[in-house]
Amino acid sequence: MTDSTDRVDPALAAGNRQALAGYQARHFGWRVADGVATVTLNRPERKNPLTFDSYAELRDLFGQLRYATDVHVVVLEGAGDNFCSGGDVHEIIGPLIRLKAPELLMFTRMTGDLVKAMRACPQPIIAAIDGVCAGAGAILAMASDLRVGTARSKTAFLFNRVGLAGCDMGACAMLPRIIGQGRASDLLYTGRALPGDEAHAWGFFNRLVPPESLGTEAQAWAAQIAAGPTFANGITKTMLHQEWAMTIEQAIEAEAQAQALCMLTEDFGRAYRAFVAKQKPVFEGN
Amino acid sequence: MTDSTDRVDPALAAGNRQALAGYQARHFGWRVADGVATVTLNRPERKNPLTFDSYAELRDLFGQLRYATDVHVVVLEGAGDNFCSGGDVHEIIGPLIRLKAPELLMFTRMTGDLVKAMRACPQPIIAAIDGVCAGAGAILAMASDLRVGTARSKTAFLFNRVGLAGCDMGACAMLPRIIGQGRASDLLYTGRALPGDEAHAWGFFNRLVPPESLGTEAQAWAAQIAAGPTFANGITKTMLHQEWAMTIEQAIEAEAQAQALCMLTEDFGRAYRAFVAKQKPVFEGN
Amino acid sequence: MTDSTDRVDPALAAGNRQALAGYQARHFGWRVADGVATVTLNRPERKNPLTFDSYAELRDLFGQLRYATDVHVVVLEGAGDNFCSGGDVHEIIGPLIRLKAPELLMFTRMTGDLVKAMRACPQPIIAAIDGVCAGAGAILAMASDLRVGTARSKTAFLFNRVGLAGCDMGACAMLPRIIGQGRASDLLYTGRALPGDEAHAWGFFNRLVPPESLGTEAQAWAAQIAAGPTFANGITKTMLHQEWAMTIEQAIEAEAQAQALCMLTEDFGRAYRAFVAKQKPVFEGN
Repeated sequence: MTDSTDRVDPALAAGNRQALAGYQARHFGWRVADGVATVTLNRPERKNPLTFDSYAELRDLFGQLRYATDVHVVVLEGAGDNFCSGGDVHEIIGPLIRLKAPELLMFTRMTGDLVKAMRACPQPIIAAIDGVCAGAGAILAMASDLRVGTARSKTAFLFNRVGLAGCDMGACAMLPRIIGQGRASDLLYTGRALPGDEAHAWGFFNRLVPPESLGTEAQAWAAQIAAGPTFANGITKTMLHQEWAMTIEQAIEAEAQAQALCMLTEDFGRAYRAFVAKQKPVFEGN
Repeated sequence: MTDSTDRVDPALAAGNRQALAGYQARHFGWRVADGVATVTLNRPERKNPLTFDSYAELRDLFGQLRYATDVHVVVLEGAGDNFCSGGDVHEIIGPLIRLKAPELLMFTRMTGDLVKAMRACPQPIIAAIDGVCAGAGAILAMASDLRVGTARSKTAFLFNRVGLAGCDMGACAMLPRIIGQGRASDLLYTGRALPGDEAHAWGFFNRLVPPESLGTEAQAWAAQIAAGPTFANGITKTMLHQEWAMTIEQAIEAEAQAQALCMLTEDFGRAYRAFVAKQKPVFEGN
Repeated sequence: MTDSTDRVDPALAAGNRQALAGYQARHFGWRVADGVATVTLNRPERKNPLTFDSYAELRDLFGQLRYATDVHVVVLEGAGDNFCSGGDVHEIIGPLIRLKAPELLMFTRMTGDLVKAMRACPQPIIAAIDGVCAGAGAILAMASDLRVGTARSKTAFLFNRVGLAGCDMGACAMLPRIIGQGRASDLLYTGRALPGDEAHAWGFFNRLVPPESLGTEAQAWAAQIAAGPTFANGITKTMLHQEWAMTIEQAIEAEAQAQALCMLTEDFGRAYRAFVAKQKPVFEGN
C-alpha cells in the first residue's frame, strides 16, 4: 500500500487533499499507521463519555477524513475495558435540560452531523466494542461499517431510559437495516442492554472475540482492508450509503457508473496481472 | 405513570383528545388498565377469524388511538389457544368472489387502512401469538411493533394458498424488513407455516414463551413500556415509520428535530434529576 | 397447472406472448418441463464462468420471460459441482482493462440489465448453489428470489479482491436487505467466501441440502411453486420489487390495488370452491 499523494498533481490536490497523520487531537486519542487511523475515546475513569467538545471535534475530524490522503481505514475504540458511555450526564444532559428549542436543535444537529460525517467519509470504520457501549456510544458503534465485540460488552440504545425517544442520530433508520425492524423495536422501546453474544447472533457484531485480543483483532482486520483496493473500498462505502432509499433500477444504474469508474483504476489492472502471474496483487488505491 | 389529561387545557384538548377506557367494543374484547389496552379477538370456536365488521371496527379503533389520552401500549391477542385465523372463509372470502373491481378495491383498502392505523398510532403494539396465526392474522402480527409467541404457534402468510398474491396489507414491504428479503420470499411464495422457534430465530418473534405464560408475559412487557416516557415512545414509533424510505441524511435531520422536541419534555428533566438523586425516574408522558 | 395460452384471444396475445419451451440456448443449458424452466451454466471444466456472450443471452432470455406463457418458475444452476465462478478472467477481465469509459459503462450496464431482467420477470427464480459461487455468480444467486445451497458451497462477493468495488449489479442495494447491512458490509469489504452453513444461518440460503440432492430439491421446490397460483405469484414478485423504496402508506395502497386484481382471477374462486368442498385447489394461473 502506497500513499497516493506522491503521484497527484499538486495543483489539483491543493486545498482539498490532506494528510491527517500529524493531526493533534485534543479530546480523544488519534494515531495513524500504515493507512489505519485509530480513534481512542480516552476518559476510561468515566467509561469514555462524549462531551460537547469531543462531539464537535469528532464531527470535524470525520469531515476532514473525506479528503485525507493517508487514512484508508478507521478503528474506533475506547480506552480501558469500555467502549463509550454516551453523552456525559453532568457535562451534556445537565446543560441540555436548561436549553430552549433552537439551542437543542443545534445540539441534535451537531450529533447528527457526526453520524453524517462517519457515513460520508470513504474509509470503512471498524468499531471495537468492549464493556459499556451506551446511548451515543451505541450510535457510534451502529454508525460504523463493521463491529468487533466481546461477549461481556453491553450495547444499550438507552434513550428512553433517560426520557428521550429512540430516534437519535439516525437510529430509527439505521438500526432496523442492521438487525431487522422487530429486533430494533425491542431495543428502542426498552432501552435494554444487548449482550455480546446476542449482538453477534443478530449480525450487529460481525465478530465476537475475547477481550484481551479485541484491539489486535480490530487492527488486523483494519490492516487487511487497508491492503485492499482503497479507492474501490471507498466507492463501496459511498454506494452502500447512496443506494439506501433508491429503487433497485436506480441502484443498478448507479452501480454501473461507479463500477465503470473503478474499472479505470490501475488497481483493477494490477489485480488482473497478478492473477495471470499467479501472484497476490499489491494495490495502491488508484 | 399518570394520565396527562388532567393537565391539558380543556380548550386545546376539546375535539381531538379522548379517553378510550370506556369504549364498548362490539366485535372483539377491549379493556384498558394502567395505560395498557388489550384487544382480544374472541371467537375462539373459529380460531378468532376477522369479519367485515371486526376489520372496520379495528380500523376505526386504532384510528382513534391516535388521539387517546389513556392508552400508552396496546396488547393484541386471541382468545383460547389461537391468535387469529384471518379473514373468515364463509363471511369474507365467499362474498368477495362475487364482487367487482370497485368493491374489491374498497375491501382491500379497508384492510390496508387497518394496518395504516396500527402504524400511525403512537402506542407500541405487542402481539401475543399462540396457535394459528394465519392470513390477515399473520398481517396483524407483522403490523405490530413487538411480538411474543409460543413454540407451538404457526404463522402463515398463506395468501397464495387461497389463490392470492403475498402483497396483502403491506406484507411485501414490511415482512422483508423484519426477517430479510430471502426469508420473506420463502414465506410469501410458499404460504408455509412458520413454527414458533423459527419465527424467534429469524427475529419475527422477539420472545418465545410457554403457552401458559403468554398472556402474563405480554402484559408484563406492556406494563414495562407503559412505565417509560410514553410521549417519547410515541415519537420513536412515529420515526421508525416516517424514516422507512428516507435517505440517511433526511432521517438524521428528521431525528434531530424529533429528539429536540423530546428534550423539551418534562420526562427528560425527570430522568436527569432521578439520575442525580440515584433514584429510578417516574415518567409522566409529557 | 395448465398453459393458459389456449384460452387467450390470439389477437390480444399476438406479438407479446410467447412460449419459450422451444428456445435453443447457445451459451448455457435450457429446458422447460411442467412450467419449470431450468438454466444450467455449463462449462464445468472452468466452474461455469460467464462470458460477454452468456451475459447478453441471459439478459435477453430473462427479458423474454416477462412475456412467456409456459414458464412459471425458473431454476438457475451450474453443471458439475459448482454454481458459477463469475466473469471469466481471460474472456472478460482481460479485455475490460483495455477499454475506455464509454465501453466500460456499456459493459456494466449490460450486466446490470441482466439483474433488472431477473427482478422484472414474474417467475420466481430458485438458485441451486454448490461449490464455487463467486463474483457475478454470487450476484446471480443474490438476484434470485430463493436460494438452496450446500454446506460445502462458497459464496464470495469477491469484487474488491480483483481491485473493484462491491457495488456490482445491485449488490450494495440488495445484499443488505437479504442479510442485513453489517453482514453485507463484511462480505463486500473483505471479499471473503461465505460457507454454506453461515449463508443458511444468515438467511442468504433458504435451505441447506446435501450436494447429491441439490438438483432434486430445487426442482421439487420449483414444482411446488409452479403448482400454485402463478399469476398471483408473479404479482407477489412484482410487488416485492415495486415496494423497495416506497413509504409504507404507498406500499399499502399499491398492494390494495394489486390484491384486488388477484381477487378477480379464477384462481381465487377455485381455491374457495376447493376449500368448501374440502379438496385441494387446482390452480390455472388465471
